[in-house]
Amino acid sequence: MRLRNKPWAQELIKNNEQYILVEPTAMAGNWQKRFAKSQPLELELGSGKGKFILEQAKKHPEKNFIAMELQTMAAAMILKKQLAEKLPNLQILVANGQNLLELFAVDEISKMYLNFSDPWPKTRHEKRRLTAPNFLKLYQQVLQDNGQLEFKTDNQGLFEYSLVSMSNYGLHFEQISLNLHASVLADDNVTTEYEEKFAQKGQPIYFLTCRF
Amino acid sequence: MRLRNKPWAQELIKNNEQYILVEPTAMAGNWQKRFAKSQPLELELGSGKGKFILEQAKKHPEKNFIAMELQTMAAAMILKKQLAEKLPNLQILVANGQNLLELFAVDEISKMYLNFSDPWPKTRHEKRRLTAPNFLKLYQQVLQDNGQLEFKTDNQGLFEYSLVSMSNYGLHFEQISLNLHASVLADDNVTTEYEEKFAQKGQPIYFLTCRF
Repeated sequence: MRLRNKPWAQELIKNNEQYILVEPTAMAGNWQKRFAKSQPLELELGSGKGKFILEQAKKHPEKNFIAMELQTMAAAMILKKQLAEKLPNLQILVANGQNLLELFAVDEISKMYLNFSDPWPKTRHEKRRLTAPNFLKLYQQVLQDNGQLEFKTDNQGLFEYSLVSMSNYGLHFEQISLNLHASVLADDNVTTEYEEKFAQKGQPIYFLTCRF
Repeated sequence: MRLRNKPWAQELIKNNEQYILVEPTAMAGNWQKRFAKSQPLELELGSGKGKFILEQAKKHPEKNFIAMELQTMAAAMILKKQLAEKLPNLQILVANGQNLLELFAVDEISKMYLNFSDPWPKTRHEKRRLTAPNFLKLYQQVLQDNGQLEFKTDNQGLFEYSLVSMSNYGLHFEQISLNLHASVLADDNVTTEYEEKFAQKGQPIYFLTCRF
């Protein structure tokens, strides 16, 4: 979903560089310096309005989190929430997922989250799906050797595609649920804004974790 | 589902050894001799009453098929159908899947089918599931190097388990559908007796193909 840009957003971002960076050029390998403590670094790719990553950061003070989001307006909405919370283990990054290798050093991240990514259903847009092999190759480099990738979606076609794509890339699945909210895994699940609305309709949420 | 044994079944099997063998000891490597023509050999593990394998054999005269079934009564019901059809490319085998290496030579089979296998939902019964690693190891040996494994089930838990088990064994998925009957793959789909009843209730059938 495309949000309309509003004047306050740019201004808010510029005035709060301690919490948010826009397309930084010299951060690869240096992210731990932005946090109060040096501890495992987890990255959400496509954070939307940030409900998931804020709750996750509150729930896990023993880890550092980065909310990565391409849309300035969505990032500004995450920032507003972070300014109310001032979580020492959460940073916001406005950047494109395709630039992951410029933004992070090899092995810098211990876990990545893909939540309700754009399904790009047309075959000619396959390369834009965040579980396409061109993206998996980027994740493999920035993730530590035993690093985990977690993925959830409501989109059946994207989940089917992702299972095939990940399997052929050589990823090994650890946990799979074809109906997350009805499974035992739901106890640990932190939801996104989108997920809340969708699950209320009784439709299944697909979930997996895997390692390279 | 356990069928009650009836006296006619044993008699019928004994009188029709050209179509059916019970726990044969010297067939490994020799299956092609049982068919009219030497052509790719495909095996269904757990054929039930045989609707799938009979339709598949009729649809594909260019391949040979073996219906493998543990229950004598179910095998006798497949045999009855085969006696009406006399398909030159279908053989019936009464035997236990755990004895696959005694029944087939290495690389003897080009494709295997697992249709609506028993889900064995209890964790302590994991090794009985036909997609557990102990079984995958057997399939890998009797299947040709580029051989395919096809699996369908209505059981969500078994499908989730199988995706994880197969992925960790190193299998690569080719096609996955989380709702076979609503997908384009339905056009080529030959149904089982059980599948017909289940799909009429509108519940999803899970489907995958994969290679070692």
